Amino acid sequence: MKTVLFTSITLLALSATAGQEQAATIGARLMAEPGVKAALDAIRRNEPQIVEEQVRLCEIEAPPFKEGKRAAALRAMFAALGLKNVRIDAAGNVLGERPGASASPHVVFSAHLDTVFPEGTNVRTSREGPILKGPGIGDDCRGLAVLIGVIRAMNDGRLQTPGTITFVGTVGEEGLGDLRGVKHLFQQELKGKVDRFVSVDGAGLGITHTAVGSRRYRVAYKGPGGHSYGAFGLANPIHALGRAIAKIADLQVPKEPKTTFNVGRIGGGTSVNSIAFEAWMEIDLRSADKAALTALDATVIKALDEALAEENDRWGGRGRLTLDRKLVGDRPGGQVPVDAPIIAAAVSVTQALGLKATLDEGSTDSNIPISLGIPAVTIDGGGSGKGAHSLDEQFDTTNSWQGTARALLLALALTR
Amino acid sequence: MKTVLFTSITLLALSATAGQEQAATIGARLMAEPGVKAALDAIRRNEPQIVEEQVRLCEIEAPPFKEGKRAAALRAMFAALGLKNVRIDAAGNVLGERPGASASPHVVFSAHLDTVFPEGTNVRTSREGPILKGPGIGDDCRGLAVLIGVIRAMNDGRLQTPGTITFVGTVGEEGLGDLRGVKHLFQQELKGKVDRFVSVDGAGLGITHTAVGSRRYRVAYKGPGGHSYGAFGLANPIHALGRAIAKIADLQVPKEPKTTFNVGRIGGGTSVNSIAFEAWMEIDLRSADKAALTALDATVIKALDEALAEENDRWGGRGRLTLDRKLVGDRPGGQVPVDAPIIAAAVSVTQALGLKATLDEGSTDSNIPISLGIPAVTIDGGGSGKGAHSLDEQFDTTNSWQGTARALLLALALTR
Repeated sequence: MKTVLFTSITLLALSATAGQEQAATIGARLMAEPGVKAALDAIRRNEPQIVEEQVRLCEIEAPPFKEGKRAAALRAMFAALGLKNVRIDAAGNVLGERPGASASPHVVFSAHLDTVFPEGTNVRTSREGPILKGPGIGDDCRGLAVLIGVIRAMNDGRLQTPGTITFVGTVGEEGLGDLRGVKHLFQQELKGKVDRFVSVDGAGLGITHTAVGSRRYRVAYKGPGGHSYGAFGLANPIHALGRAIAKIADLQVPKEPKTTFNVGRIGGGTSVNSIAFEAWMEIDLRSADKAALTALDATVIKALDEALAEENDRWGGRGRLTLDRKLVGDRPGGQVPVDAPIIAAAVSVTQALGLKATLDEGSTDSNIPISLGIPAVTIDGGGSGKGAHSLDEQFDTTNSWQGTARALLLALALTR
Repeated sequence: MKTVLFTSITLLALSATAGQEQAATIGARLMAEPGVKAALDAIRRNEPQIVEEQVRLCEIEAPPFKEGKRAAALRAMFAALGLKNVRIDAAGNVLGERPGASASPHVVFSAHLDTVFPEGTNVRTSREGPILKGPGIGDDCRGLAVLIGVIRAMNDGRLQTPGTITFVGTVGEEGLGDLRGVKHLFQQELKGKVDRFVSVDGAGLGITHTAVGSRRYRVAYKGPGGHSYGAFGLANPIHALGRAIAKIADLQVPKEPKTTFNVGRIGGGTSVNSIAFEAWMEIDLRSADKAALTALDATVIKALDEALAEENDRWGGRGRLTLDRKLVGDRPGGQVPVDAPIIAAAVSVTQALGLKATLDEGSTDSNIPISLGIPAVTIDGGGSGKGAHSLDEQFDTTNSWQGTARALLLALALTR
């Protein structure tokens, strides 16, 4: 999911330079084309069926690292819709091509397959009026459904795009998945072949142009442990962990670009009257600014080492502790300028539909292309949602066709 | 159990003053009495049967707070051995009196019923040569067996004691039981009526004269929690906990009397990318010195409060945290001087049997009378043991009669 909606910037006017003037007006120009009109009509007509597909995909569980069943279903849909070279890559991503008049520009248009919900979660979706309820129904079954809606509308409008689109269902977008699907896409499967990247993620109409980077650690202090009284005088892993957390708690970080730190989980020890043999924590560091994140990362690592040394020194090396630090998450960050053509296009097509364009920041599949300097944007899939990542997740289908329509227009714009 | 064997002081000579000269020679004098000789002969003869009783009691489970079944069995044994006024008190302790020539001195001679093992633990005891294996077989089925052995030997030797002995099986000696059985004994059941107190606890031949006091806390910091990035800027309960632990980690405590602190267990948080709504720890503070423990206690409470204030101040009161501090253990400490008559008597009877007397410190049922200024001692029950508090607990019966014999002599000495 787009893990955060931070600032909403209403775009009243975009500064126009030669390069992006085209992008800034692409929405209105597309809307005037007969083929596009036909496709947009198809989208309004097809939306109820798209919502059905959304539910159908969502009732196939896709736990972290086990997206296979949902991937197989999406692959079958891609094939049925006439995409070419439909396949599942080595990471588990589902790919299908819709060739344009030319191979380039090559646009990847994606949504993620995985959910945060563990195997065995009841993934039945229920419906009350316009509201769908079910785990993952917005994040990101909506994105997958939008992909289907865009392909079907293009087919219905008999649209041939100038460039080629590869539609992709990615794996591993959530949490410890650590963007492994999209990483594989850019490092292996489509390495060097992607000109523009779009991820459709979740409900709403926002446009995410800022990729918040993150680094996550699992840290453990370890020692021999012993009786709290009998062995008193040995270094204590929990005490070392406390020293480290206290240092982290007082770190100073820039306000702009927003840079954050969090010790999210801790554990350790077997009983109140034992010196623990292990204490651990999980740390989350974030920033949209690469340099700020790198600096924060170095400070935290230094704090971890200092805490180890202090606890060892406190007891003269008796029961000497060791530190085990594992990088368990690494999402590079970055920002696509507000006036970059891909953002200008996303804003233009949104406004062409009479909708308000808001720019957000978040951590999504787009982090990877953005960090590589490849134009990328994450757009919401329409409708509105709440309770993402909870079992009570909801998706309100009211006007959800707007999300599909906006996605279609953006796909068309980026192939030009 | 006697939770700790810290120092072993071999007593070569005890300074003799008028008052304790009698106590210091009581062992040899008792051994010369024909009735006592007969009783000691009975002990050697009876020991195999006593070990059978030890196994039989131990195969009746006695989990924390659920000692009832074992208590009922002990009650039946007390009655069968002819004790008077056999009863189970309001706390669950089993009591039975062996009246002497006079009501005083009134000696309580006890062992604890409870184990650390949860309900459903397999409490079968196996035997290989002299070694018994089973949960609780030493701690404290041995103590209970010694009580039975002492009563039987007194009966066999037709010994009438000058003072009266109440034999007691106590509940709640272990861990979170927090000495509730012996507390009830001194606060209610036998309040103001006990002149001398002996606890027989575990295997070996040590004499515990120093009662290590302890205070235990469960501490939780609580706040609203939120997303690690979106809600950054709220106080973090884990960070507050870390600040508190870091302060505790640097506390200075006296070496003599040994005074200790330990954060034994920690937990908190739901995911790496969430600000936790709760973080908790369990703290163990110990000292044989009441003043040192009180001072340490106050310092820790201050550290907990300061950590709360610092984390709240760090974020200007946003996501203000609260602190929940529960006292979950309170064992008063103290020390019976090495030259006090009860310790002199324990040493004397040990040496009269040709055994080495070693003085230990620990946390046992004797903590309560010692803290009240009532002469008290905890003695080991003989034999030798290992793995107390583990499922692999063992008791070696080799020469275990010595423990029973020493207990008999001490009981006789203290009734004079």
